[in-house]
Amino acid sequence: MKNKADKLLAAVDLAGTYLFAVEGAIAAIHGNLDFLGMVVLAFVTAVGGGIIRDLLIGAIPPGAIRDWRYTAIAMAGAASAFFFHQVVQEIPIMLMLTLDAAGLALFAIAGAGKALDYELHPVMAIVMGGITGVGGGTLRDLLLAQVPTVLRADVYATAALLGAAILVVGLRLNLPRVAVGVAAGSACFLLRMAAVVFHWNLPKVAG
Amino acid sequence: MKNKADKLLAAVDLAGTYLFAVEGAIAAIHGNLDFLGMVVLAFVTAVGGGIIRDLLIGAIPPGAIRDWRYTAIAMAGAASAFFFHQVVQEIPIMLMLTLDAAGLALFAIAGAGKALDYELHPVMAIVMGGITGVGGGTLRDLLLAQVPTVLRADVYATAALLGAAILVVGLRLNLPRVAVGVAAGSACFLLRMAAVVFHWNLPKVAG
Amino acid sequence: MKNKADKLLAAVDLAGTYLFAVEGAIAAIHGNLDFLGMVVLAFVTAVGGGIIRDLLIGAIPPGAIRDWRYTAIAMAGAASAFFFHQVVQEIPIMLMLTLDAAGLALFAIAGAGKALDYELHPVMAIVMGGITGVGGGTLRDLLLAQVPTVLRADVYATAALLGAAILVVGLRLNLPRVAVGVAAGSACFLLRMAAVVFHWNLPKVAG
Repeated sequence: MKNKADKLLAAVDLAGTYLFAVEGAIAAIHGNLDFLGMVVLAFVTAVGGGIIRDLLIGAIPPGAIRDWRYTAIAMAGAASAFFFHQVVQEIPIMLMLTLDAAGLALFAIAGAGKALDYELHPVMAIVMGGITGVGGGTLRDLLLAQVPTVLRADVYATAALLGAAILVVGLRLNLPRVAVGVAAGSACFLLRMAAVVFHWNLPKVAG
Repeated sequence: MKNKADKLLAAVDLAGTYLFAVEGAIAAIHGNLDFLGMVVLAFVTAVGGGIIRDLLIGAIPPGAIRDWRYTAIAMAGAASAFFFHQVVQEIPIMLMLTLDAAGLALFAIAGAGKALDYELHPVMAIVMGGITGVGGGTLRDLLLAQVPTVLRADVYATAALLGAAILVVGLRLNLPRVAVGVAAGSACFLLRMAAVVFHWNLPKVAG
Repeated sequence: MKNKADKLLAAVDLAGTYLFAVEGAIAAIHGNLDFLGMVVLAFVTAVGGGIIRDLLIGAIPPGAIRDWRYTAIAMAGAASAFFFHQVVQEIPIMLMLTLDAAGLALFAIAGAGKALDYELHPVMAIVMGGITGVGGGTLRDLLLAQVPTVLRADVYATAALLGAAILVVGLRLNLPRVAVGVAAGSACFLLRMAAVVFHWNLPKVAG
């Protein structure tokens, strides 16, 4: 069971990695970085959240360091953006946002699930889902010397936390694992897309 | 003895957390972040130093990740700043600085004590006290894309290092644990307050 | 054999630390930081890459935290820059760049070697060599709220990765350890110096 769950989580992790890597590489182009900067931002965006989660839950070395395939995927993402940047940059923004929302959902539920496997408290497993979802983008923005977008605008991390919360509650209630995962991922994806479509933002205090 | 010290350290850790969380949330308001950004900055400011320390000394998962109460306190701090921001922002600056100095003292001695418990070299235990005291504020400033205040101005980290040094030396000399803690915390607090009152700064090289 | 290699790596680590510490302290002066800021930037620049590597490969506490001598060397580097800054700043830029290239080579091969000792996959050991070489400078730039130079300009991390790759391939082929180390370090050093002399940069996509 544990083993099977691990395999599912590994597949889910790899699935979102390429997409986030391409996004990181595109951000590097906009930040005027060179090809190595593109590889670094691709890697950091794609696996930074998972690495932070793994360090915090004690899964050391982190999955993305033990398994060279993450690095290969990050390089492939950077190479895609480098050689096909004109194609990549003409991908409609709505398609990119949709794919990104799917990646966010996958990362959030994979992250929360792994934290539960490491026997974290349910509340902290939800937090770990959020960190897995947005940690990579946060590190990417820090490397570009920018205030992380996720802290400032849009319902993004909130969607990751919602998905992680549904996963954690569902698994604690011993509901069927696959159904819980699908419900959790869908909730995250739909909340994120609704926020994109309707321009939802979290409330702010006037500074 | 170890157990008792652990309990004391846990209480000390929790005591400063709420205050630092409120400070982090206020910084988030000034940085124009949304409510989630306030929670993140509250959490990072309050427990970031302790998390860095725990990762470095090998206390993994870090206390603030194992124990969901830190997250709850961070959310309470953010909520306080969100709902009562007009009250919070009218707290006299001198009161805030005094409370902050108390928090710094608590964090510095708790951090140095925990590092000693993990059998770090005394010199490094002092460094860990400093990191515990100022690490959260440093991460907060990084997330706001600012040069950390602590590196640039005032006698702040220096006070944390002084308190940590007194604790480490006192404990190595087998002086009574409580007396050493009180002396160390007082020294940190008083040096910090003197720096605030007399506008002390560390020397600089003209750049 | 392992033990001997460890000693060699420790010596190599210490050798580059002082130089990188001085560079970090100089960057702190240019960033208008105070003396504590100089110590912090000296420490972070000198041992930041090794600490990130150690956290990622599971060598916890990291070498620079277990061994107080790294902290002492960082303080010595900061003190050198503080008291002799006029001398230090008149060191010809070409000499500094040459010494820096030597430090980069030492860090890159020490980092890759340690990762192999911890049984990382060869590809990831090369990545760890790169991180060891450039991680400290990256953290330094982040603390100064700047986009890390290494992501933006010059063949720098690339030289570290080349040296690490030669080391890893050579050791996997069971070539003599010392010869491999010399070849790997020389390749890193020479590529870096060639990049300095001929102003080589990696390709970029027009943003």
